[in-house]
Amino acid sequence: MVRYGQYDVPPVDQEVNFKVGQPSPHTLLPLDLVRQAANAKFAETDPKFLQYGDIPGYLEFRKSLAGFLTEQYGAPVSPDELMVTNGITGGLALFITIFCRSGDLVFAEDPSYFLALRIFEDFKLNVVQIPMDEDGIIPEELEKQLQKQVPKFLYTIPIGHNPTGRTLAEDRRKKIVELAYKYNFVICADEVYHLLGFPGVPSPLPMPYYDQKKERVVSLGSFSKILAPALRLGWMQGPMKILKPIIDCGQLDSSGGINPVISGIVHQAIDLGLQKKHLAYVQEELHRRCNILMSALDKYMPAGVTHEVPKGGYFVLVKLPEGMLSTDLLDVAVKNKARFLPGTSFGQGFGSYLRLSFSYYSAEDIEVGVKRLAEAITQLQNTQANGK
Amino acid sequence: MVRYGQYDVPPVDQEVNFKVGQPSPHTLLPLDLVRQAANAKFAETDPKFLQYGDIPGYLEFRKSLAGFLTEQYGAPVSPDELMVTNGITGGLALFITIFCRSGDLVFAEDPSYFLALRIFEDFKLNVVQIPMDEDGIIPEELEKQLQKQVPKFLYTIPIGHNPTGRTLAEDRRKKIVELAYKYNFVICADEVYHLLGFPGVPSPLPMPYYDQKKERVVSLGSFSKILAPALRLGWMQGPMKILKPIIDCGQLDSSGGINPVISGIVHQAIDLGLQKKHLAYVQEELHRRCNILMSALDKYMPAGVTHEVPKGGYFVLVKLPEGMLSTDLLDVAVKNKARFLPGTSFGQGFGSYLRLSFSYYSAEDIEVGVKRLAEAITQLQNTQANGK
Repeated sequence: MVRYGQYDVPPVDQEVNFKVGQPSPHTLLPLDLVRQAANAKFAETDPKFLQYGDIPGYLEFRKSLAGFLTEQYGAPVSPDELMVTNGITGGLALFITIFCRSGDLVFAEDPSYFLALRIFEDFKLNVVQIPMDEDGIIPEELEKQLQKQVPKFLYTIPIGHNPTGRTLAEDRRKKIVELAYKYNFVICADEVYHLLGFPGVPSPLPMPYYDQKKERVVSLGSFSKILAPALRLGWMQGPMKILKPIIDCGQLDSSGGINPVISGIVHQAIDLGLQKKHLAYVQEELHRRCNILMSALDKYMPAGVTHEVPKGGYFVLVKLPEGMLSTDLLDVAVKNKARFLPGTSFGQGFGSYLRLSFSYYSAEDIEVGVKRLAEAITQLQNTQANGK
Repeated sequence: MVRYGQYDVPPVDQEVNFKVGQPSPHTLLPLDLVRQAANAKFAETDPKFLQYGDIPGYLEFRKSLAGFLTEQYGAPVSPDELMVTNGITGGLALFITIFCRSGDLVFAEDPSYFLALRIFEDFKLNVVQIPMDEDGIIPEELEKQLQKQVPKFLYTIPIGHNPTGRTLAEDRRKKIVELAYKYNFVICADEVYHLLGFPGVPSPLPMPYYDQKKERVVSLGSFSKILAPALRLGWMQGPMKILKPIIDCGQLDSSGGINPVISGIVHQAIDLGLQKKHLAYVQEELHRRCNILMSALDKYMPAGVTHEVPKGGYFVLVKLPEGMLSTDLLDVAVKNKARFLPGTSFGQGFGSYLRLSFSYYSAEDIEVGVKRLAEAITQLQNTQANGK
C-alpha cells in the first residue's frame, strides 16, 4: 500500500491521538463521491479544460460555487466576489504576497492556528496576538493594541476556532469590522469551519456579511474539510478592492489561475448534488462525534475537569482541574495510550487546557480515548497528591 | 461550451497570433491520455490518497518522477532531490517566500520571461537584468554586476529561453555556477523547456548537473508543457540545503504538500508509459513546427529579416531589417491579421526583434501567419520608403 500522508496515525489499541485534526479516512473522505465527480469531469470532450485557466477560476465554476454557498449560508454570494484558491493556506499565502511586505505587522487571536503563525513566519511578518475569551477575540483588547499600532490585517478564525473551538459572537463581529474601518486594516477570516457548523445550532453569518461597505473583509473557505484535503481547492470571498490586486498578480497570470482540473471535478461534485449531500453527512457526523466526546467527558472525567461547547468545527477545549498543567498530563497520557494538543503549545494562559479533536475517530474510539485520558488525570492527581 | 481559458484565441481567418505561448488544444493537450491516467488513479480504493499529503510529494510518486527524469536527462535524478510544486510559478513563489525578503535583489537575463518579472514585483523584489547574447547570459557581464552587488538568486531560463529561444552554452553554465560559489548566491533555473529539446539536437544537461558540490543550483520543472497546464503540477530539483527549508515551511505543513490528487494522476501517466509517449510526440511535433516556421521565414520574408535557430522550446527570435521597429510593425501586422510579441516589450536593445511562438498553430496556420507577417513588413517598408 502506498504511503500517501504526512504521517501515519497508529491504530487505537496503540494510541488514541486527539491531536489529529484531519478527517477520518474511512468515513469522512468520500472516495466514491470524488470518483463519481472525476468520472463525470473526465467524460468531457473539450480539451480546453486542460489549458491555462481563467485567472479567478472559470466563471461557470464560480457560479456553481456561489449557488452552493448562497444556499448553505442562507445569504447571497455572487460569483464576482469569489476567486479560486489552493485552500485556506494558498489563499492566505496569496493574500500576504500581494498585500504585505516582510516585516509588516499582523494581528491574530491568542491562541491561534499554529500553522498560520508559521505561515506568517514564512513571510517574515511580525505577529501580535490579541486575547480572546469564550465569545472570541475581545474587541476592547483589540482596540487597546490598535491604539499602539495598526496591522496590515487581522487574521481570525471566527467559528470552530482552532485550537479553542470557539465562535466569535455576532456583536463582536460587528464591532471588529467597525474597528477595521476606524483604524484602516483588513480582516482576513479563516472560515474553514464555517460550513461545519452543527445542524440546528444557530451560528452567525460568515464575516463578509458584517462588512456593509464591502471594503475590509475577506473570507477564506476550503473544500479540504467538506470534501477532501488532497484536492487542494478553496475559495476567497471578498470585495473587488481586495480580490482585484490578487487576480491581477504575476503569479496567477503565469499559472493561469489555480487548479483548473480539480475545479472541474469539484464543479461536478456540486452540480451533481454530491457536495451538498456529503456536507450534510459530515455536519451530522461531526455533531454526533462532538456530542459523544462531550458526553464521555462528562461521564468519565474526574471532578474539576470542564469543557466548552463548540457550535461546529473539529475541536473541544477541555480545562483541567485547578493547578494541573497540560504538559504534565501529556507525559502520563502518552504512557496511557492517549494524546492531545496541550494548551502550553498554543498560548500563555492556556497551560491547563487541552485541545481534543473529534474529526478523526469513530464514536467508540472517542470513548476509549476519553477513558484513557480520564485515567491519566486520576493517575496524575494521585501522583501529585502523594508527592505533596 | 464552457469558457475555461484565460483568453480565447481567435480563428485563423481572423488572426494568427504568434504571441500565444500555449500548447495547441487539439493536438498538444492530450485529453485521452489524461483521462486514462485519471481513470486508473480513481480506480484505486484507498481513500488515504484524499488526505493531507506527504509534504515533498509522496515518495512513490517522486520515485516514478525520478525514474522518468533520469531516462529523459540521461543523468541520474534521485527522489530525495525532488519535491512537488504547483508548476514553475508555484515553485518560484515558494522559493522566494522562504529565501527572500521584500526589497531583496534578484538577477535575471535581459530579456526575461515577462511574468517572472511580474512575480518578482508581487514579492517586492528588486531586479537587475544581465545582458545575454545567442549563447545565453554573458558571464563577464554577470560578474561585472556581481562586483557591485550580489543578488539573493539569479533567475535564468537556460534552454528555449523565453523570449529569445536561446540556450545557455555549456561553458557558460560552468562559469555561472563558479560565480554562484565565488559570490555566494543561488541559481534558480527555470527549465520548463528542458524536456522540449528537439530530438537529435544536442543540448547541455539541466543546470543542477553543473553544480558538482550540490549547494547552489535549484531547477524548476513542470508538467504544463509536457502534459497539461491545467494540472498545475511541477517539481523542484535541488540539494537538501535548498529543499529542506522549503519542505519545512508552515505553508506546506498546513496544506499537506501540493496537489496530491493530481500527483496521483500524473504518477499513473508516468507508470503507464503515457507521459513518455506523449513527450516524444510533443518533441517531434514542436520540432516539426519550428522547422516549418523557420522554412516559412526563409521563404517568405523580405531580405534583411533573419532568425535564430532554437534547440528546443516554443520560440523563434526574428530580427527585422536594419532600422525597422517591432512596435511599428505590430500596428501593420494586426491590420494584416497577424500578431507577435514585439521586442520592445521585453528589453532595451530588442526593439527590432519579434518573438514568434510555434506551439499553438498547425503547420498550415504557421505558414499563413508568416505570409501575413512578411506582407506587413513589405507594406511597412514601402510606407517608410514613401515617407522619406
